[in-house]
Amino acid sequence: MIPIVSIVGKSKVGKTTFMEKLIAELRSRGFRVAVIKHSAHDFEIDHPGKDTYRHAQAGAEAIAIASPHKVALVKSLEKEPSIQVVLDMIGPEYDIILTEGYKRGPFPKVEIYRKGISDRLVSREDDLIAIVTDNSFSIDKPHFDLEDASGVADLLEKRFLLARKSYERAL
Amino acid sequence: MIPIVSIVGKSKVGKTTFMEKLIAELRSRGFRVAVIKHSAHDFEIDHPGKDTYRHAQAGAEAIAIASPHKVALVKSLEKEPSIQVVLDMIGPEYDIILTEGYKRGPFPKVEIYRKGISDRLVSREDDLIAIVTDNSFSIDKPHFDLEDASGVADLLEKRFLLARKSYERAL
Repeated sequence: MIPIVSIVGKSKVGKTTFMEKLIAELRSRGFRVAVIKHSAHDFEIDHPGKDTYRHAQAGAEAIAIASPHKVALVKSLEKEPSIQVVLDMIGPEYDIILTEGYKRGPFPKVEIYRKGISDRLVSREDDLIAIVTDNSFSIDKPHFDLEDASGVADLLEKRFLLARKSYERAL
Repeated sequence: MIPIVSIVGKSKVGKTTFMEKLIAELRSRGFRVAVIKHSAHDFEIDHPGKDTYRHAQAGAEAIAIASPHKVALVKSLEKEPSIQVVLDMIGPEYDIILTEGYKRGPFPKVEIYRKGISDRLVSREDDLIAIVTDNSFSIDKPHFDLEDASGVADLLEKRFLLARKSYERAL
């Protein structure tokens, strides 16, 4: 059971930038981090001329590349994969999985709210474990400054990561 | 048990080009094809500025992107993944998996040999199920012309795909 936390917020609010800081912070504390990005639109990860692109154009529905220190996989799908399918692909060797998006998913959420961009919280209050914001809300959840990845890392560590380490030690 | 066939041969012999034709041929016959490319060197699949690249630079060791019709995953590894790990990532929904490379792997092999580029067969004779070549070898295995993806598709279909379909019907 890897803890999964979703970083949510309106488009352009700075989710990716905040996640970069949060990933680096967790990583510097020795945790292994995986990320799932939810994209509402199809994306291109490979490019014309590359072998993988050529295989896909020819009709291969899944293309993996394995190298000494990296493995990649691109699969075409008839319908959007469930989060469980994506988790199974990722595998078990991480301490925490951060998702970018999945605001309607079942995971605890850290919402980023920026004045002038956001107009309301996109999360249900019950799902929220923290708000990263330059605003203040009358909601009884921890607030963090927009730059405070370290504060959010503290929260995740206390709430999910130390408990998991103790649990694993106890096994 | 998805049949797995390796397309092997010396570097620059035309493995990718032949595979494009073979994939298109199998696909046109209604088979679902997955591909594993073995790369001796690390590769870059994402690019500076992209969100996935930013997450990887920040220290995420696995990054997935899920969209309505595609899912992609890039994992950093300490050591080269076993083929089984890659197969598990790919999943069960394909009729055949073609590998590009893995010439020392345990799978039946189609070797591409081109005069002026190849100097010897890279496969052990026992592993070979076909030779795609402009040469001729005193080896009792089917030979196909360098362009004859259709002939190789016939062979794969007879040898692996029809048998599987009959087996599945019998279940």
